[in-house]
Amino acid sequence: MFLMVLVLYSSWICPFEFAFLHYLPTTMFLVDNIVNSFFAIDIALTFFVAFVDPKSYLLVDEPKRIAVRYLSTWFIFDACSTFPFQTISFFFSRHGNSLGFKLLSMLRLWRLHRVGSLFARLEKDIRFNYFWTRCAKLFSVTLLAVHFSGCFYYMIADRYPDPKRTWIGAVIPNFREDNLWIRYVTAIYWSITTLTTTGYGDLHAENTGEMLFDIFYMFFNLALTAYLIGNMTNLVVHGTSRTKTFRDTFQAASEFASRNKLPRHVEEQMLSHICLRFKTEELKQQETLDGLPKAIRSSIAECLFYPIVEKVYLFQGASFNLIFQLVTEMQADYFPPKEDVILQNEALTDLYIIVSGQIFIIKGLIIYNLQVQGRLIAGEVFGEIGVLCHIPQPFTIRTTELAQILRLQSAVLFNTIRENRQDATIVMRNLFQVNPIIDQHCLTK
Amino acid sequence: MFLMVLVLYSSWICPFEFAFLHYLPTTMFLVDNIVNSFFAIDIALTFFVAFVDPKSYLLVDEPKRIAVRYLSTWFIFDACSTFPFQTISFFFSRHGNSLGFKLLSMLRLWRLHRVGSLFARLEKDIRFNYFWTRCAKLFSVTLLAVHFSGCFYYMIADRYPDPKRTWIGAVIPNFREDNLWIRYVTAIYWSITTLTTTGYGDLHAENTGEMLFDIFYMFFNLALTAYLIGNMTNLVVHGTSRTKTFRDTFQAASEFASRNKLPRHVEEQMLSHICLRFKTEELKQQETLDGLPKAIRSSIAECLFYPIVEKVYLFQGASFNLIFQLVTEMQADYFPPKEDVILQNEALTDLYIIVSGQIFIIKGLIIYNLQVQGRLIAGEVFGEIGVLCHIPQPFTIRTTELAQILRLQSAVLFNTIRENRQDATIVMRNLFQVNPIIDQHCLTK
Amino acid sequence: MFLMVLVLYSSWICPFEFAFLHYLPTTMFLVDNIVNSFFAIDIALTFFVAFVDPKSYLLVDEPKRIAVRYLSTWFIFDACSTFPFQTISFFFSRHGNSLGFKLLSMLRLWRLHRVGSLFARLEKDIRFNYFWTRCAKLFSVTLLAVHFSGCFYYMIADRYPDPKRTWIGAVIPNFREDNLWIRYVTAIYWSITTLTTTGYGDLHAENTGEMLFDIFYMFFNLALTAYLIGNMTNLVVHGTSRTKTFRDTFQAASEFASRNKLPRHVEEQMLSHICLRFKTEELKQQETLDGLPKAIRSSIAECLFYPIVEKVYLFQGASFNLIFQLVTEMQADYFPPKEDVILQNEALTDLYIIVSGQIFIIKGLIIYNLQVQGRLIAGEVFGEIGVLCHIPQPFTIRTTELAQILRLQSAVLFNTIRENRQDATIVMRNLFQVNPIIDQHCLTK
Amino acid sequence: MFLMVLVLYSSWICPFEFAFLHYLPTTMFLVDNIVNSFFAIDIALTFFVAFVDPKSYLLVDEPKRIAVRYLSTWFIFDACSTFPFQTISFFFSRHGNSLGFKLLSMLRLWRLHRVGSLFARLEKDIRFNYFWTRCAKLFSVTLLAVHFSGCFYYMIADRYPDPKRTWIGAVIPNFREDNLWIRYVTAIYWSITTLTTTGYGDLHAENTGEMLFDIFYMFFNLALTAYLIGNMTNLVVHGTSRTKTFRDTFQAASEFASRNKLPRHVEEQMLSHICLRFKTEELKQQETLDGLPKAIRSSIAECLFYPIVEKVYLFQGASFNLIFQLVTEMQADYFPPKEDVILQNEALTDLYIIVSGQIFIIKGLIIYNLQVQGRLIAGEVFGEIGVLCHIPQPFTIRTTELAQILRLQSAVLFNTIRENRQDATIVMRNLFQVNPIIDQHCLTK
Repeated sequence: MFLMVLVLYSSWICPFEFAFLHYLPTTMFLVDNIVNSFFAIDIALTFFVAFVDPKSYLLVDEPKRIAVRYLSTWFIFDACSTFPFQTISFFFSRHGNSLGFKLLSMLRLWRLHRVGSLFARLEKDIRFNYFWTRCAKLFSVTLLAVHFSGCFYYMIADRYPDPKRTWIGAVIPNFREDNLWIRYVTAIYWSITTLTTTGYGDLHAENTGEMLFDIFYMFFNLALTAYLIGNMTNLVVHGTSRTKTFRDTFQAASEFASRNKLPRHVEEQMLSHICLRFKTEELKQQETLDGLPKAIRSSIAECLFYPIVEKVYLFQGASFNLIFQLVTEMQADYFPPKEDVILQNEALTDLYIIVSGQIFIIKGLIIYNLQVQGRLIAGEVFGEIGVLCHIPQPFTIRTTELAQILRLQSAVLFNTIRENRQDATIVMRNLFQVNPIIDQHCLTK
Repeated sequence: MFLMVLVLYSSWICPFEFAFLHYLPTTMFLVDNIVNSFFAIDIALTFFVAFVDPKSYLLVDEPKRIAVRYLSTWFIFDACSTFPFQTISFFFSRHGNSLGFKLLSMLRLWRLHRVGSLFARLEKDIRFNYFWTRCAKLFSVTLLAVHFSGCFYYMIADRYPDPKRTWIGAVIPNFREDNLWIRYVTAIYWSITTLTTTGYGDLHAENTGEMLFDIFYMFFNLALTAYLIGNMTNLVVHGTSRTKTFRDTFQAASEFASRNKLPRHVEEQMLSHICLRFKTEELKQQETLDGLPKAIRSSIAECLFYPIVEKVYLFQGASFNLIFQLVTEMQADYFPPKEDVILQNEALTDLYIIVSGQIFIIKGLIIYNLQVQGRLIAGEVFGEIGVLCHIPQPFTIRTTELAQILRLQSAVLFNTIRENRQDATIVMRNLFQVNPIIDQHCLTK
Repeated sequence: MFLMVLVLYSSWICPFEFAFLHYLPTTMFLVDNIVNSFFAIDIALTFFVAFVDPKSYLLVDEPKRIAVRYLSTWFIFDACSTFPFQTISFFFSRHGNSLGFKLLSMLRLWRLHRVGSLFARLEKDIRFNYFWTRCAKLFSVTLLAVHFSGCFYYMIADRYPDPKRTWIGAVIPNFREDNLWIRYVTAIYWSITTLTTTGYGDLHAENTGEMLFDIFYMFFNLALTAYLIGNMTNLVVHGTSRTKTFRDTFQAASEFASRNKLPRHVEEQMLSHICLRFKTEELKQQETLDGLPKAIRSSIAECLFYPIVEKVYLFQGASFNLIFQLVTEMQADYFPPKEDVILQNEALTDLYIIVSGQIFIIKGLIIYNLQVQGRLIAGEVFGEIGVLCHIPQPFTIRTTELAQILRLQSAVLFNTIRENRQDATIVMRNLFQVNPIIDQHCLTK
Repeated sequence: MFLMVLVLYSSWICPFEFAFLHYLPTTMFLVDNIVNSFFAIDIALTFFVAFVDPKSYLLVDEPKRIAVRYLSTWFIFDACSTFPFQTISFFFSRHGNSLGFKLLSMLRLWRLHRVGSLFARLEKDIRFNYFWTRCAKLFSVTLLAVHFSGCFYYMIADRYPDPKRTWIGAVIPNFREDNLWIRYVTAIYWSITTLTTTGYGDLHAENTGEMLFDIFYMFFNLALTAYLIGNMTNLVVHGTSRTKTFRDTFQAASEFASRNKLPRHVEEQMLSHICLRFKTEELKQQETLDGLPKAIRSSIAECLFYPIVEKVYLFQGASFNLIFQLVTEMQADYFPPKEDVILQNEALTDLYIIVSGQIFIIKGLIIYNLQVQGRLIAGEVFGEIGVLCHIPQPFTIRTTELAQILRLQSAVLFNTIRENRQDATIVMRNLFQVNPIIDQHCLTK
């Protein structure tokens, strides 16, 4: 990170020195050389940093292979961008400001590629917001473009023989005597006016050289502006996609309800379920979990549901194996308040265990008046009689508040129990102890 | 909503006062204080408004927790933006127009964050069109940006010692004597000219301070323009996606038909089916329903199809349970006019019940001349003999007008009937009573 | 379509008359009235045109309901836009050029909504290219915007008391004497310069009224430009999506091959298969077909494959029913030249019938030298012995040229044959007659 | 490729000659004719180049059909663009610079369509980066647009009677005497200033003709800019989609872990698995392979896994057939270091074979302290006892470094073994020889 500050400093100072400073002040010369020495140290260190082989995805830490890889790829650029050309130029010319050596010192801009790779890493780091990381990157690129072209455009004017026939001289005739700040701001002002295509026209190219530079700069601007807009569009599309999906789903459900004249309570259940699903981002998380291998999913299920399931009366005394295998096949769903989980008379295909929230047992057909028969709280199970004894559901089950409920498919339950004989008798004994009445009914079936 | 009007008023008047009014008129001063008092009341009310906990999704209405949450988040900003700095400034300076106090009164712009959260809520509300809500938001942002920068740019010129060397003074030399309206329109004109990057150049920065502000404003404009375009692109892509999907599907079908030289009537059936599916948005609604939990889907199916299915002759006298369980497994499809629902000789896998529309029974192979054998209307069933007796379909069934037809998979029908023995005999008796001839044929099988 | 030309004419002439013509020439007055009368006739006709009810998707042709719907929706606008205000104005003022009546005649622009609905219809018509339809629409909108604002801006200058203080008068002092063409071109030139945000600045607002109009126009331009770019992006994304998908798939396959060092001939088979699949747009068409109801898919399969399958030796003498049911379950695939269809020793799960192209039977393991054993042409079947007698595939089957091959799952084949006892014996007899050697082998199994 | 250079040369020189050169120098005249002759040769060659029929996807090499197709499509354009109008014009006028013949020579621009088809081909070639190919195309289009309009705009000024009233004459009064380079740069400078909508205004239209051209050019620019931005957006969206998907998946997993307070080691396993999956692009490659026909997938599986599987002790001595059939059903997964492959007590559904990497066998429940029981390396198999003897997994299996593991579903294994009786006994004998203890246990089951 400290190196990044140096990179930014040197990439900013480099074109500035190039354009505005005829004679380098001693302080700046010193700072430049100190910065350079830091980069020299960094080059030396690179020979000892392991890298990941892109083919086998393994870490390589052999010094020889590291050296071979570095020397054959970026070493030459790094070395050139650190070599102190300017210091050497003192031995040749008196002022060290000959154009050739100045151009060589522009090689330091190569260092900017480090900033590029920093941003590439930041973009993949979820601790930073993608939108702002990306914006910061684009802003840096724009800022550097404005700075570079401003400096370069000033240099063209500065070296033109007739000051009146330059873009700045046409407005400020004796601009060379003006102080540095005014000249720099004017150059940046022209640069940004051109880059944003505002083009007031108060400062414009006067001679062929300036026109040529302006032509190239405008071509570059066209590409840069398009790139900026493209990136912003990308970010906006990405940022609003959730809201759009939610709206589309909600609207489709709402239209379906109004077109088919569904009763008010069914429509409300539909819409509140959709709202909840989007609020909890259930879909996205479910998709992520589905992509994981089985062992990890089992670990997760064990952590989350084992403590709840082992306390359920049905599995009291059952072996660790049975509960573990059942838990790995369970699915957790959220239900908003006042939603039906099972309807009366439905054919049951799942067993339900309440993780949190409260639930009412309701008797009566949905359309007529309803009668609350009881309530269930976290840790209780429902649907077990229906599933284990093949009886259609005798009650409607409805949530009273936000509830998280585990679901286990009856086919999975049967298969797992069948493979663990001893557990099967334990489970059935538990069932009959708690629900003595259904004992007979169930056995006859 | 009333508060929103006040927010917009205060965010508009605030920079305007700041830039154009040296001495605040008494009426405005009064209005400002009244508006401020409304916001003070609002701050007090916030202490009594419940909020939803972002972790557990539960409503919190304990006054203590509300207070802690508010005091630790936004209270300090709200308080600062409501504190009457300007009134206090009267005690210190005579005119109350010192720059410091004016800057403090800019804190009122903090109130704008309320508009942001209003729009965020509106975007999720399907009663409002997404396109226009989003456009209104972007337009507000642009308008405020233009207003702010116009005011600020005027203030720079107004406070510059030499009026001739300012952006407005270069064009209107004695601009300070001009009336307020002309000065305001000119400032806004410059601001919008720069924001849209038109940049006529008739008004442009003249001194370094103006250039600096212009540089920052143009950077901001670049980002804003990109953001506007990004949003518009997003909206356009979203808005046209249905048409595009329709075109792609239609074209793929059309190309398939022409490449394989399909007969005219088959091609027409294909294309009209695709048109109908897109017109009724069947796909989107089906997807929405598939995402709902089973109990809600059962409720919907019961509301929609129970009254129709219970009147079908096949299920006369059957138990509520049986019909309810069948209904929850049914699927509704739309068929355009003149489309074949079943072809003669096809192996049947579904039972069909007509909800609306009219249908012809046709005998003969498709390629030769056809012969209408009968017609079926809403409430009638077809395919029942084929499914229950395993006979290949003896007739082609073709719609004559737009028809909605329920489909029930034969596997589901068998499973459900098998679990309800008594109903099975009722259903078979109904079948043989209505179709006496097939009795023998079916039994031998 | 004829009406569309009139609409475009009247929407172009309307602001032109408004701005540039103080006294309406007689010819134009006549043409205007003729055009108006056409629209009056169209209004009358609308009362007799049936419409589709948006709820039930049925055509409504009751004159009363049509009238009620039209009168309650668009009639009032249509009537106002056709009412000859200009003709009436002659009775009041002498020249018929009072501003009020001119503004009323702007109501004719309402007619433009017809162009909008025309384009909406064209976009859904696959005979027209989506890209160009959309471009034409956007171009029309831009053209009208440029024309309108050009006319309006000229009118502001024309009515301003001091000609020198207007945008056009500052450049052409006595512009009112110039000919119409020059004035119109100048106005359009200013308009397009502003709309595209070029903003040369040679023509710019001079007084407050012009500035105000310019402010509104630039706001509009911002929205329009964003809308244009959004649309273009949408079209580009849509247009290049196929190429991108192709590249991604191809690259993934290519990388997979090079990373795993797959032999050359396997890689070539992979890549040429992917190329062919994209060239024939197999995927898109398959998706379209999958969305169609079963009866249509059966019709298509019958048209395409029945003539081929009934000639296959295996099904000689089999009933229409059997072949029809098999045909509806078949899938057609394209294979590029030199691709393996089945490998030697593979466990067979499908029966293959060649529709077109030529195929080699090859003996030997893939890695060693191969030996051509025979060839198969269109109408021949392979894999039948393996599927019907459960023998692993004795030969590799490889295409020599582009081949279309039907595939039938063995499970489907068995199920269909089992339900048609008589056909089963015919099929087995055919098999043993042609392949006498395998008779014994197969029966013992 | 050589022809492409000629095409670019002639499309660049053509408008340049047209606008700037009154009298064509002899050298250029010669070069023009040489270039023309190359194109004439190319036309002749086209008659002998085979083409692919767009309907049947077959190569057509009949000379007659090629000729018919070419003559009926593009021949007339190619011929016109190659016909030496300029040479002929010498016979009529003395200088060969009459406007008519110059316009005819503009027909050469037709040749540009070749560049279009070259780019279309390059875009589909994965050896070239899509981003840069597309950028190169857009840059060429922009460059040509700038060149054409610059030349044309200069020509308008050049032919205008009053040099002072032209866009260039207003700035450089005696521009016709200036050297070619200055005039060309100025024209290009104006052109690019307008195209990028910078519009400084130092050069602007002065007469109606110039205004008209400028109007058309600005309309074109609007479309071109929108097209450029659209393309750039498309490229950016395409280029960042992988990073975005990765971030979304990673974030969803991370949020899920923190919300459910998963233990640290489970969260780490989840996240490192997701990282690895994206690094190896597993998903994209898996999707590609799934789209290939079965024979190719079998070939790939054989190349990759046969040498490993045949050395596994379980399949020592088994027939080629058995191993081949098993190999074609195997799936390869990557596991990051320290990830659990199977948990203790899990019900096994797969057999695993290690391709590369090292694996630990761990005893003990995950939550308590663990005990390393052994290690497995490449070529070893695990889970075989559990799968073949139906015993729940006795150990946790965890990777120590990046491992590639083959997975075979137990159902597939049983089916394949059942169909090869002799192999079944070999496999079971191998199993018991290596694991003598489990012999009894397994047999009793």
